[in-house]
Amino acid sequence: MRATVMYGAGDVRVEDVPDARLIEPTDALVRVTSAAICGSDLWPYKSMEPTPEGRRMGHEFIGLVEEAGADVRTVKRGDLVVAPFLWSDGTCVFCREGLHTSCLHGGRYGDPGVDGGQGEAVRVPQADGTLVALPVEANDALLPSLLTLSDVMSTGHHAALSARVGPGKTAVVVGDGAVGLCGVIASKRLGAERVILLGRNPARTALGREFGADEVVEERGEAAVERVRELTGGLGAHSVLECVGPDDAVLTAIGCARDGGAVGRVGIPEGDTIPGVHQSFFANLVLAGGPAPARAYIEELLPDVLEGTIEPGRVFDRTTGLDGVPDGYRAMNDREALKVLVEP
Amino acid sequence: MRATVMYGAGDVRVEDVPDARLIEPTDALVRVTSAAICGSDLWPYKSMEPTPEGRRMGHEFIGLVEEAGADVRTVKRGDLVVAPFLWSDGTCVFCREGLHTSCLHGGRYGDPGVDGGQGEAVRVPQADGTLVALPVEANDALLPSLLTLSDVMSTGHHAALSARVGPGKTAVVVGDGAVGLCGVIASKRLGAERVILLGRNPARTALGREFGADEVVEERGEAAVERVRELTGGLGAHSVLECVGPDDAVLTAIGCARDGGAVGRVGIPEGDTIPGVHQSFFANLVLAGGPAPARAYIEELLPDVLEGTIEPGRVFDRTTGLDGVPDGYRAMNDREALKVLVEP
Repeated sequence: MRATVMYGAGDVRVEDVPDARLIEPTDALVRVTSAAICGSDLWPYKSMEPTPEGRRMGHEFIGLVEEAGADVRTVKRGDLVVAPFLWSDGTCVFCREGLHTSCLHGGRYGDPGVDGGQGEAVRVPQADGTLVALPVEANDALLPSLLTLSDVMSTGHHAALSARVGPGKTAVVVGDGAVGLCGVIASKRLGAERVILLGRNPARTALGREFGADEVVEERGEAAVERVRELTGGLGAHSVLECVGPDDAVLTAIGCARDGGAVGRVGIPEGDTIPGVHQSFFANLVLAGGPAPARAYIEELLPDVLEGTIEPGRVFDRTTGLDGVPDGYRAMNDREALKVLVEP
Repeated sequence: MRATVMYGAGDVRVEDVPDARLIEPTDALVRVTSAAICGSDLWPYKSMEPTPEGRRMGHEFIGLVEEAGADVRTVKRGDLVVAPFLWSDGTCVFCREGLHTSCLHGGRYGDPGVDGGQGEAVRVPQADGTLVALPVEANDALLPSLLTLSDVMSTGHHAALSARVGPGKTAVVVGDGAVGLCGVIASKRLGAERVILLGRNPARTALGREFGADEVVEERGEAAVERVRELTGGLGAHSVLECVGPDDAVLTAIGCARDGGAVGRVGIPEGDTIPGVHQSFFANLVLAGGPAPARAYIEELLPDVLEGTIEPGRVFDRTTGLDGVPDGYRAMNDREALKVLVEP
């Protein structure tokens, strides 16, 4: 079959790989109908050391179950399913608490021996604990939005929950990437009274406004913090969603937070430490977040997507076949595309 | 009057200073009956740059109101009162939310123009928003415990709340100082199923056991983390109270936490950053805490002290007059005394 393999920074190839097939009786074989390139795929795209083996890429996908292992109970051949960006057993102590990202028997797509989502098919380990069957057809107009549940929409939701967004609160979203924009959706959905989006890409912030952002702040760093403080009576925001990752974005997020408020972090940390400890400590900020337990959130968010209440699929602004994946990486890395949908 | 002044690291003097007196109509003049030396006083004791003006010391005290300003409504001459370690107006948006440490019109004892608690008397600004009248006599046996409400017991409670201690949870307390020991009390009080105390001073950990610690871990750093993981089925603790401050203690705290758990920080940060970001991020830890809003907690904890349900005053293991304060600093710095009670 054909699949995407990264061999080093900037070196993404679509090539023939061994066909995906069941190995464990808990596996399901999923024929991918749509997949995505993730902002987090750009980290290795920028920095990966060259390797002759390469790494299979992609962790967001929807597909049709082609074959289910003997022990699989919850999905069957012919089901359209969405996969969260990590696989999980659904039964361990963490999965039962809804923290599937810490599953004791889970793992990542693309790890040695595991397929990636940017390919024709995927062997999904722990299918019962991982896959969620979708009550739509494979050509449904809702598919792009359903696909975001695998990662970006769930991650935006995690940022908002971690930042303790709720009714009557002001939320600041740091970053106008796909996750930040989903953070805007999630904040409005959780009842935020006011959402301020930090970003300066006109097309993205315009979409952010359509998603519900009340204000857009184009400034960065200290100037952004000042502007947010002006907009919040000098106090800062109750909830800040950090959707970028690098230290300067984290410092901006901390600076925008009101004393006693919360910063929900979903941007992958860049360094070894969290900056701004004196600011966060003396302001009694809560710092929370991490990888989103998308498996738990898919069930929570699915009704809203099916009803059309939220439309996170609008973050996709380019669609390509499998052969166009390398150029999709380039386009996202050059900020030419916001998020690329792949139809293998 | 006589009061404690620090002129630099290791240079603590008790000397004559101008008598405390009312300045604003919202002030109260409090004749100190008991005060304390705080672990946080040891930071300047270790590191303060020499200064000819000196700094007035002490922020934990109980005393009798000698005179109340014209606008003071809630305390009157003759009242025995306890002061939280910061003063606050009680009316601003943060005070109304119970976050008196972020009071828009509050401040610190010992700042220029404000007395310190380790002296004969204190002008307390914003008396209505700051002082809490105590329903006991000035010679009551409960006074040491009541005095801890001004800082250490409230701070231990803040650590426990920030670490989300609750019924059925395992709490780890990092540090066997007075705050850590109060964190043990607070954890049991909030219903922790099991409390593990990290410390190696036999007298202190013995007191910790009397306060309710189920286990004591004497190891430090990685060895302590390993031991805590052994004690918690490999998973770590739901709640970790970081009651020390330096980076190695914070790393230990993070290492002891269970995925999805919380670290409540009350130890004053040493560096500019929080270490261990990859551990805390990928484990979805909550990092919370800061200076304790003691003013809010005094009212919450007071009934338990008055009923004798908790006895945090047992952390005091030495009592001195005002002249003995410099030696009290030395004794605490040398870990010869756990916490020193001052009776001016």
